[in-house]
Amino acid sequence: MENLQLPQIRLAPDMIHLGVGQPSPSLLPVKELETAAAHCLGRGEGSFLAYGETRGNHSFRESLAAFLNGQQSLNGPDHRSVGPDQLLITNGNSQALDLICTLFSKPGDTVLVEEPSYFLALKIFADHHLNLVPVPVDENGLVTKVLEEMLETMAPAFLYTIPFYQNPSGVTLSVQRRQELARISACKNLLVVADEVYHFLNYTGTPPPSLGVYESQFPVIALGSFSKILAPGLRLGWIHTSADRVKTISRSGLLQSGGGLNPFTSEIVSRVIQKGDLSAHIHHLKQVYAHRAGVLCRQLRADLPETVTFQAPQGGYFIWLKFPDKIDTTALRKTAQTRNVDFYPGSLFSCSQGLRSHMRLCFALYGDDLLIEGVNRLVRGVEQSHPELFGGGQPRI
Amino acid sequence: MENLQLPQIRLAPDMIHLGVGQPSPSLLPVKELETAAAHCLGRGEGSFLAYGETRGNHSFRESLAAFLNGQQSLNGPDHRSVGPDQLLITNGNSQALDLICTLFSKPGDTVLVEEPSYFLALKIFADHHLNLVPVPVDENGLVTKVLEEMLETMAPAFLYTIPFYQNPSGVTLSVQRRQELARISACKNLLVVADEVYHFLNYTGTPPPSLGVYESQFPVIALGSFSKILAPGLRLGWIHTSADRVKTISRSGLLQSGGGLNPFTSEIVSRVIQKGDLSAHIHHLKQVYAHRAGVLCRQLRADLPETVTFQAPQGGYFIWLKFPDKIDTTALRKTAQTRNVDFYPGSLFSCSQGLRSHMRLCFALYGDDLLIEGVNRLVRGVEQSHPELFGGGQPRI
Repeated sequence: MENLQLPQIRLAPDMIHLGVGQPSPSLLPVKELETAAAHCLGRGEGSFLAYGETRGNHSFRESLAAFLNGQQSLNGPDHRSVGPDQLLITNGNSQALDLICTLFSKPGDTVLVEEPSYFLALKIFADHHLNLVPVPVDENGLVTKVLEEMLETMAPAFLYTIPFYQNPSGVTLSVQRRQELARISACKNLLVVADEVYHFLNYTGTPPPSLGVYESQFPVIALGSFSKILAPGLRLGWIHTSADRVKTISRSGLLQSGGGLNPFTSEIVSRVIQKGDLSAHIHHLKQVYAHRAGVLCRQLRADLPETVTFQAPQGGYFIWLKFPDKIDTTALRKTAQTRNVDFYPGSLFSCSQGLRSHMRLCFALYGDDLLIEGVNRLVRGVEQSHPELFGGGQPRI
Repeated sequence: MENLQLPQIRLAPDMIHLGVGQPSPSLLPVKELETAAAHCLGRGEGSFLAYGETRGNHSFRESLAAFLNGQQSLNGPDHRSVGPDQLLITNGNSQALDLICTLFSKPGDTVLVEEPSYFLALKIFADHHLNLVPVPVDENGLVTKVLEEMLETMAPAFLYTIPFYQNPSGVTLSVQRRQELARISACKNLLVVADEVYHFLNYTGTPPPSLGVYESQFPVIALGSFSKILAPGLRLGWIHTSADRVKTISRSGLLQSGGGLNPFTSEIVSRVIQKGDLSAHIHHLKQVYAHRAGVLCRQLRADLPETVTFQAPQGGYFIWLKFPDKIDTTALRKTAQTRNVDFYPGSLFSCSQGLRSHMRLCFALYGDDLLIEGVNRLVRGVEQSHPELFGGGQPRI
């Protein structure tokens, strides 16, 4: 078993970090990008090296719209098409969130976030000095009933939601809740910012369409990204919203000055899409990740006591464990690290210092062997700290 | 004469837009990028497709540091070296400015800007709801004496300056003024944000080093970019500042979440640098632009009355014309447009509705023929609107 080296996160040589939400290096599509780059740069025409259209070059938005419509149509009859005018190209969802904060909020504003939510989005909001208020999530996603009650006494700048295979909880907003959210948003004029980065990584069943397709019904900005379906190092994503809101965003100083956010990479990815390589890559990723999700689930179910609960993932990257309330996973992490295994404790994903007995594990980064070995180490660490969970007063090992 | 098509700015078929600050499409280095991309993607190793280091991948920062030190050493004995720890990779100066606003200011703060200054930077600051206060610029750059007086009564979040071949005025901050700025900044703890996008495009003499090399002496963030020396569509640049400030910026949510701002493009540009193609391309650009600057200057000097004044450019992209005070270039622009020529009026570059008798022209976009034809049209437009400038009561044409 050889360990991985990641540019962003330096792992100790023998450390298995089950928390890290990144794809395996072996799943990065080097060949596909090589072919596409050779095609684009070999034509002797370099308009994509100039300052681009502020909303992203039109040819790329056309390719992207065709791809999105193709994906949506896989997802059943309830699809609506998206056109290039409803799309604005970004440097990925992190940059899109940052820009949305600049354009649609000001320091001190309230922003509603799911509890739990993606911890680094919370950091972006904190950099903009926003006041984060949690809305609970259950097995059907954001609890819209609570949201509606909260809106009686507050007028947030926006709601940040992850409606597909949520990071970290893995849950997807149910169809009924979507309808409720649409009604509430329209009624209260609540801007919904939907981070849909895991939308196309479904492993069982088919997900509902992007919230972006309802842009004419309620104020929504849906964020999509190539980070999880192609490669994070591309820093490429898109905003799907109303044509009017696209115009508003494209008039920002950042976009006017820079001339679009990523014209060069867009051109190459446009070719990947046109060649069918993106759809094929997603198909491959879904097979690999579904398999790994199964491996991780089975190992956790076999080795952890039943008092530790979780749902089998339907898509995305993560399994969200719930330990008995008395267990603080931040403390547990120190023990785990001494056993060369790591994870992200639940409190990271809370804007209110809650979720202390939760834990996020990712099945995208490691293959079977390291996933299984990681769980072995983790379970021994849990048993060392909390032998009572395993029915004994002393550790078994 | 065939006109140009630019992705960002749609020009009418026969329009010559002398205002646009973009490189000629023919000067975009398609071949160099083709070779570099084939090299990087052909090795079968794709770590640059993963989430990258928050400050930019180390190998790229090493290549960049070597390039910068090579450029600085061309500029005489007063050079100090830069290392990878003083560099942070950006999506270009527009994105860097946006991030600096988020991290180092809040809405309502005062930001000092040069009068004139780059108009789209002003738009970025406006998006962050900053209060812009002008500091005058003369033939030696920012007037530091006035700056010092202003700081007696205000504590701005930062000063935004363009110290090399300024956009739009073309002036470079003199060595003496640099020393004054360093002293004032250190004394008043004034953060200096130096947009150095034109630094390496010098056509006569050698420019002083980047203000970034003085990061240990006063609080400065210098911004460099590949937009003018390689290709704007790459959206790639760098911050040069103290290692401590690099750490502060790299802890932002945007960088932690996205994993660096442009790992894929960085890798390709790293190869362009290592192969020597960047230095060769800059050498070529300097020859082309120096020639075009001469063409534009000569034509303007020949055809415009002496009451319209300007300096011959020493570097950069622009010539900054001053018309007699009574002439409003915004009004003049309408006449010019009817003659299929366009420019940017001075008021665009003012945060205080001044500079109404100035005009920015760019010599980077067009070759000789279109530059000369553009000046012919412009001069006829000026004469139509203001025959008295040419000594006659009626237009000559």
